[in-house]
Amino acid sequence: MSNVVSTEANSSFCANIADHALFPGSRRIYVSGSRSDLRVPMRQIRLSPTRRADGTIEENPSVNVYDTAGAWGDPDFHGDVEQGLPAIREAWIAGRGDTGVISGREPLPGDDGYLSWKQADSAQRAASLKNKRVHFERGVRQIRRGLGTAPVTQLHYARQGIITPEMEFAAIRENTRLQEAAQSAPQALLPRDAAHFEHAGESFGAAIPREITPEFVRSELARGRAILPANINHPEVEPMVIGRNFLVKINTNIGNSAVASSIEEEVEKMRWSVKWGGDTLMDLSTGKNIHQTREWILRNCPVPVGTVPIYQALEKVNGRAEELTWEIFRDTLIEQAEQGVDYFTIHAGVLLRFVPLTAHRVTGIVSRGGAIMAKWCLAHHQENFLYTHWDDICDIMAAYDVAFSIGDGLRPGSIADANDEAQFAELKTQGDLTKRAWAHGVQVMNEGPGHVPLHLIRENMTRQLEWCHEAPFYTLGPLTTDIAPGYDHITSAIGAALIGWYGTAMLCYVTPKEHLGLPGRDDVRAGVVAYKIAAHAADLAKGHPAAQYRDNALSKARFEFRWEDQFNLSLDPELARSYHDATLPQEGAKTAHFCSMCGPHFCSMRITDDIRRYAVEKGLDTAAAVEAGLAEKAREFTSGKA
Amino acid sequence: MSNVVSTEANSSFCANIADHALFPGSRRIYVSGSRSDLRVPMRQIRLSPTRRADGTIEENPSVNVYDTAGAWGDPDFHGDVEQGLPAIREAWIAGRGDTGVISGREPLPGDDGYLSWKQADSAQRAASLKNKRVHFERGVRQIRRGLGTAPVTQLHYARQGIITPEMEFAAIRENTRLQEAAQSAPQALLPRDAAHFEHAGESFGAAIPREITPEFVRSELARGRAILPANINHPEVEPMVIGRNFLVKINTNIGNSAVASSIEEEVEKMRWSVKWGGDTLMDLSTGKNIHQTREWILRNCPVPVGTVPIYQALEKVNGRAEELTWEIFRDTLIEQAEQGVDYFTIHAGVLLRFVPLTAHRVTGIVSRGGAIMAKWCLAHHQENFLYTHWDDICDIMAAYDVAFSIGDGLRPGSIADANDEAQFAELKTQGDLTKRAWAHGVQVMNEGPGHVPLHLIRENMTRQLEWCHEAPFYTLGPLTTDIAPGYDHITSAIGAALIGWYGTAMLCYVTPKEHLGLPGRDDVRAGVVAYKIAAHAADLAKGHPAAQYRDNALSKARFEFRWEDQFNLSLDPELARSYHDATLPQEGAKTAHFCSMCGPHFCSMRITDDIRRYAVEKGLDTAAAVEAGLAEKAREFTSGKA
Repeated sequence: MSNVVSTEANSSFCANIADHALFPGSRRIYVSGSRSDLRVPMRQIRLSPTRRADGTIEENPSVNVYDTAGAWGDPDFHGDVEQGLPAIREAWIAGRGDTGVISGREPLPGDDGYLSWKQADSAQRAASLKNKRVHFERGVRQIRRGLGTAPVTQLHYARQGIITPEMEFAAIRENTRLQEAAQSAPQALLPRDAAHFEHAGESFGAAIPREITPEFVRSELARGRAILPANINHPEVEPMVIGRNFLVKINTNIGNSAVASSIEEEVEKMRWSVKWGGDTLMDLSTGKNIHQTREWILRNCPVPVGTVPIYQALEKVNGRAEELTWEIFRDTLIEQAEQGVDYFTIHAGVLLRFVPLTAHRVTGIVSRGGAIMAKWCLAHHQENFLYTHWDDICDIMAAYDVAFSIGDGLRPGSIADANDEAQFAELKTQGDLTKRAWAHGVQVMNEGPGHVPLHLIRENMTRQLEWCHEAPFYTLGPLTTDIAPGYDHITSAIGAALIGWYGTAMLCYVTPKEHLGLPGRDDVRAGVVAYKIAAHAADLAKGHPAAQYRDNALSKARFEFRWEDQFNLSLDPELARSYHDATLPQEGAKTAHFCSMCGPHFCSMRITDDIRRYAVEKGLDTAAAVEAGLAEKAREFTSGKA
Repeated sequence: MSNVVSTEANSSFCANIADHALFPGSRRIYVSGSRSDLRVPMRQIRLSPTRRADGTIEENPSVNVYDTAGAWGDPDFHGDVEQGLPAIREAWIAGRGDTGVISGREPLPGDDGYLSWKQADSAQRAASLKNKRVHFERGVRQIRRGLGTAPVTQLHYARQGIITPEMEFAAIRENTRLQEAAQSAPQALLPRDAAHFEHAGESFGAAIPREITPEFVRSELARGRAILPANINHPEVEPMVIGRNFLVKINTNIGNSAVASSIEEEVEKMRWSVKWGGDTLMDLSTGKNIHQTREWILRNCPVPVGTVPIYQALEKVNGRAEELTWEIFRDTLIEQAEQGVDYFTIHAGVLLRFVPLTAHRVTGIVSRGGAIMAKWCLAHHQENFLYTHWDDICDIMAAYDVAFSIGDGLRPGSIADANDEAQFAELKTQGDLTKRAWAHGVQVMNEGPGHVPLHLIRENMTRQLEWCHEAPFYTLGPLTTDIAPGYDHITSAIGAALIGWYGTAMLCYVTPKEHLGLPGRDDVRAGVVAYKIAAHAADLAKGHPAAQYRDNALSKARFEFRWEDQFNLSLDPELARSYHDATLPQEGAKTAHFCSMCGPHFCSMRITDDIRRYAVEKGLDTAAAVEAGLAEKAREFTSGKA
């Protein structure tokens, strides 16, 4: 059946499998690891040769790039969203022998927001009439849980000195550049690369090796400085690593809301997000069908999926925060852990005594999770139950390898509130919770702000590193001004690039619709690309070995007027091409040695080419050598030879 | 005649005077200075009152913002582009008694790229048939020049201790916040403002007073740390100041190109650019009708206009760089100085011996002006004539008060080329030229890169401050990665915000079409707004007193669900509103106390409002005070009162 991805005519997400196909000039390749079932996907961009003025031809090596699209980006994959993705990790998980198949928690109508099975069934029938599917058929998929008391987490294995297939997979992914280097000599492509980047400029303590080895991944995980989010019940996930000595990752958010959108749209948004480069995905659904929406997403999502379980728990008590209980929350955690959620945002740092610290803020509490817990704390005059039950929560997380994303419920929602007492009181608490989670063998990252002006961003990073013991930081932006709703992907990409450079491991994307409405297809694309830019800018500044080669390849193509290569190497080839064609639509303009800025009669790049050929011939690459050769050049020019 | 702004059907710029009208919820106000003809425009955004849950009403003061739109943003102004703007500075210039009216240089057909007057006339007739106007009727406007040997520059006056009306005008403009404070108590709007911002966070040496006085403007000009670009032949300009102790300014580029676009489109782009907030404008026209295009722009442009005179000089020698001479260039400088250009980009730092240093770059020389001069140097094996004639050039600039924007012809065009020997050799030379220009009493700013990764940006600023003696820095971005053509307004806004915070005085905007094509209407808007964001983020971080009050007002409106106020306070109200309406189109949703993210049944902002009212009542604003009051609150909540 293909109607599962059909959406209503008025939806901004139209289902088109071709959208998930490869980028132009690209093919899917796999790099093999130490076992035959360990195949790491990359996207290989093929380049055209350089045709020099003297008639010689220089081949340009293909450029491999990190690929988050999963099987959806493989033209040889013919599955569909009703079957879900192949369970590539199944044998690895089973092979460790520390987990077993369980029957799992009994589903309840309240999981999807219904009062009874009768009500749930009738809603499902109504959906069927509209050609919509609600229920996902799990088929042979089974539910697993850790067998004993030892954690079944990547952190636990790393501490034992075990390099799991997941670690090896994540390591290979980080080395796209090495795959390229193996194919051809990189020298031509990378002038002055190493000397220029590794030893110059401002640095903030990231220590990235020239090659990311599986052992390096293991050691960073063991140290708590990185996480590899991979629930044993999400065998479809393609492992990746989040930590400041790796590529900066980006998270995208999707989710049903009480106001709009459907399951189909959310699944399509997920595929759209990973096509453009989303590294992880948070399902922030509220309202009806939360459980089913999540099931569809998990079974089809090649990247780690995160949730905020308190959102679903709140639905189970009909939106009345004060009726939340530990038992309802615990049940929700297990429900989601059994489905395969890879990380949970839990706002356990919103302590009772911090709540009134927000009273004089311009924008109070803007985190939904933070507000829920604050309301609960005030209503009961009791400490946040997520905090008091932290050890119980850790035990659940350890049995499925769900990672913590410790929430920042008191993050600033405006420039005026940045770095205040409430925010930092919670951050310190996040640090205490981090240590306790580590004691249970559970992986941890910490969430961060929010809205922060440029000059206060650094303090966020230094305090997080200190108070949270170098656990990965995962920030929302931060937005560097409040005055540009409609452009908050930009206000926040500025802050995101900066904090990424300072050491933040993952950046939660912001779309142009932030503060205003729900993101549609174009907004997701704009948000992901803005955040790929921020993450890449940070990777360049940190000197990640898999960063600058792509800039160099693109700039070389630009300089040589290889327009198609320039488009294909860009983050958004389709848009780049359309912008070029808006001014010079003729096909010939894409092979012409000029552009729309200076026109065909004069071009600075062409002149540079003259200079370059001459200087290379004569060895004129220092000021000292110039005098020797320029007299001759002057004669050539004035006699009309050049 | 109104047909002057009519454009062809296929133009992306459609003439619509309404586009230049006020933003919603705004009115034009004028703040008077010490003389009756000194009226500084501001845009005043009126806000609605806050309606509290307890029924009380709090008035919200209007917010005044800096306004670059000139008379085009005044609904009481009924002029049109054929008359040009009123010459508001005429009396100030004449009143100084150091300039006189001259007949001016004799126009030549080559000024507009024609070989003869006959050819020029026939081109003009052809344009008339297409309902296009080429010639601007200057009417009573006269040409002025300094009378004696003393400079007629704002730098010269500042050194004499004279506060000109221009300086006072520019000072008042920087104090939008003070105008607001005069109307109502700012305390409610600005919690923790002063303490929070002035003494915390990272700072890079900007020293901005709480009030920008005319004397402060004078002292910064005298020190060379700021410029006030205002050619005596551009009396239409509304004075503004560029320096690191003032608001960060943004420049926009327009210009006919050899490939596309017309005079009418350029004039419309100019008005569009100043509507959105462009502080200065560079006319980078090439091809035919350069002189006439510039005339139309100058007579209608309320902000300083810059050019790159070598572009026009090159047209006069039919694009053959090696045929350029000092005499042709000198004639072009005088032509443009007499028209009223406020600053000239001159690539005098591209020295012969630096040219071969670019040979091993990935992207050689990407500056058009730099490439022209490099070609000339190589062809003649002589030193750059802009360098050897520097003192002659200074004399011309001093006689009209044209400011230097010393070009960076060897700026890096790719990440790989950032901060290299060629770039820094030129920057050092820019510093030498700065000192020599100052000796002639000429105002100077220095142009900077380009493409620079985050960790190498700071070095650009520190070297520029040191080598160029704190003359204002004016950078193009910098772009922080090469891999996102189509999104270079974002890649560069990241670098621009950072370098603005570090001390760059003006940021040259980049549109989404950079590297790909010529910007249209939407691209100009996207580029300007992205750069207003970068500049404002820098202003916040530098602690400019006229920055944060707007963020606070917008965030307060957001928090209180005053949707219309949130839209109206934003940089792009129309876009913000359209994004909101895409999800919740009903008019009622703009007064509703919820948004599309959480829906009507649960809202974090609403919960915060509960917390806030309670804490304020009980004085619970420190952790210590919490225990005292929360027990009572808990009773209230559980008994259902809250």
